[in-house]
Amino acid sequence: MREVAAIGVGITKWGELWKQSLRDIYVETALLALEDAGVDRIDSMYVGSMSSGLFAGQEHIAALLADYLGQSPVPSTRVETACASGGLALRLGYMEVASGMSEVVLVSGVEKMTDVSGNEATYALGTAADQEYEGYHDMEKYSTTREQLAMVSVKNHKNGSKNPVAQFPFEITVAQVLNSVMVADPLRILDCSPITDGAAAIILYPAELAKKMGKPVVKIIGTGHATDTIAIAQRADITWLNSTYLAAKSAYAMADKKPEDIDIVEVHDCFTIAEICVTEALGFVERGKGGEAVEQGLTAIDGKIPVNPSGGLKSKGHPVGASGVAQAVEVVKQLRGDCCDRQVPDSRIGMTQNMGGSGASSVVHIFERE
Amino acid sequence: MREVAAIGVGITKWGELWKQSLRDIYVETALLALEDAGVDRIDSMYVGSMSSGLFAGQEHIAALLADYLGQSPVPSTRVETACASGGLALRLGYMEVASGMSEVVLVSGVEKMTDVSGNEATYALGTAADQEYEGYHDMEKYSTTREQLAMVSVKNHKNGSKNPVAQFPFEITVAQVLNSVMVADPLRILDCSPITDGAAAIILYPAELAKKMGKPVVKIIGTGHATDTIAIAQRADITWLNSTYLAAKSAYAMADKKPEDIDIVEVHDCFTIAEICVTEALGFVERGKGGEAVEQGLTAIDGKIPVNPSGGLKSKGHPVGASGVAQAVEVVKQLRGDCCDRQVPDSRIGMTQNMGGSGASSVVHIFERE
Repeated sequence: MREVAAIGVGITKWGELWKQSLRDIYVETALLALEDAGVDRIDSMYVGSMSSGLFAGQEHIAALLADYLGQSPVPSTRVETACASGGLALRLGYMEVASGMSEVVLVSGVEKMTDVSGNEATYALGTAADQEYEGYHDMEKYSTTREQLAMVSVKNHKNGSKNPVAQFPFEITVAQVLNSVMVADPLRILDCSPITDGAAAIILYPAELAKKMGKPVVKIIGTGHATDTIAIAQRADITWLNSTYLAAKSAYAMADKKPEDIDIVEVHDCFTIAEICVTEALGFVERGKGGEAVEQGLTAIDGKIPVNPSGGLKSKGHPVGASGVAQAVEVVKQLRGDCCDRQVPDSRIGMTQNMGGSGASSVVHIFERE
Repeated sequence: MREVAAIGVGITKWGELWKQSLRDIYVETALLALEDAGVDRIDSMYVGSMSSGLFAGQEHIAALLADYLGQSPVPSTRVETACASGGLALRLGYMEVASGMSEVVLVSGVEKMTDVSGNEATYALGTAADQEYEGYHDMEKYSTTREQLAMVSVKNHKNGSKNPVAQFPFEITVAQVLNSVMVADPLRILDCSPITDGAAAIILYPAELAKKMGKPVVKIIGTGHATDTIAIAQRADITWLNSTYLAAKSAYAMADKKPEDIDIVEVHDCFTIAEICVTEALGFVERGKGGEAVEQGLTAIDGKIPVNPSGGLKSKGHPVGASGVAQAVEVVKQLRGDCCDRQVPDSRIGMTQNMGGSGASSVVHIFERE
């Protein structure tokens, strides 16, 4: 298989975008990515979306969006695996370019979540799992504290305050998290990622050809995808995200890299406890030490392994199907050095980890700047 | 890219399967395919489903079905492009084996459509297009007759009467079609494919390795995928299925075959007029001559180009996301000579054409028995 580079990225302001439809926000980011890449055609496109059917009353968005982007008759494929839909779209786009089937592939994620009521949105999100929250309660095993959870939110909001596309670009305090409304004990509203409208796009291209364009070349050097039981209760250890561990293991092996080689990582902090479990499963900290890591500042933007420099799902927002692609957009920008106030200096190797349901699906990618 | 063979297929009785859930019918066919293939593992799986969210209140079925098949943690991907979801799953599974990323890939399609009311099912199906029926009204251009439409149904029911898994395995007459309830003039209920619960599965494997297993080897030698405007009204000619034409063009080119080389074809007869338009777009008959072809028996099981020997969507049933995979199951069985009473003799090269919305997406595959 040939090497694949990400040569263009696009993202616009996320939030409650009541004046724009799903197709509007999709087209906006796709055009930005095409312009950034400097290509005048695409051969194929992938769209990650979790539930356009339940959120927007529209299936078949692959063809619809190709049409509205003015790209019919290109092949267009929608993939879904709950909140990991965007990451999975990236994986399939990678496969199409790597295999030689296509040269220029547009990968996007999009979700329009605020056109339905809060109850309807909760119902739609619940279709990712039988019991979305059931297992996030075993903090005692590793003495993870309530304050450590809050510190994940505080860190991500601090990073997100410097991200112009973030839905909530402002800082919050530990006290604010601890005093916010309870959602499902021990998680409070400021532990939870929000409901968001948003899209993100990325253009993939053979790395050899990208080098000839004289542009910064960020290659995808590893990809991994794994599943786990849908119900957390059926897992041997409910504090361990095995699908993330296995997806990362595949990606590390393919890239021939280790956790110590990674300069920045965007992870799926749908809830604060998730970021803690993910940093352990990815091998950045020892099992059970994720809480301490955030408390000690190891995952801060100037720490040993900066986690979620974009602000993460918590501050940037979480349009479920788009999040995986947006993570890749952030990593590409960081590796190019395009992130202004939230830039992590000297980043050459980055990682994304995108997750569906309560970790029943995980997709991990590793990127490297040449 | 390496050659890919279909080494195992599975399908069970389709219909109103009120005693079985989505996961039940999925697992049943997947196990049949695994047994037929004689493999003891899978490396990856793809599931085509149009709207598990709206029909069954469940997204994230890729992970859920991997779990219920006992295959976690294998990577599992759901793809959706309305009624062409199954065909698209097959294309991606093909790509994964052809690229060398995986060896044994399980491709399935599944839809559980009868657990919601008729109104809800119609709403869900409507999400494939803005106006599903708008354009099927231009029969005058080519003097296609009302009776010719009926003959498509009559032919497909005749074929389906010999298919033990068909939802409606009995013959009907032209008079019955002409006197059935009007749905959208000129289409009557017996012109329309039914609402169906069903699944189908197929195992893909490198052809070189399949030959060593000493089994009949049916290779996928061509694949094509194309899109068109979502709204039929925006097309230059509403009688022409351009996405089918272009997908077939890609598949013919890849396989180095012409329409005359094809021995049997399974097409997407969601409505009788669709089969007529598809036979034209695939190049089996001249433009405008699809109606005459069915009247003259050219598309009958003993005709020049047997179309829908399985009974097609009309008689076999149309669990939307499953239909594309079931078409491939029928073609593989025909090329192996396993179709008993409905066997087309001496078939070596077969084709499938699967379509989403009103032809806004088409996926075409060509198969060859070694």
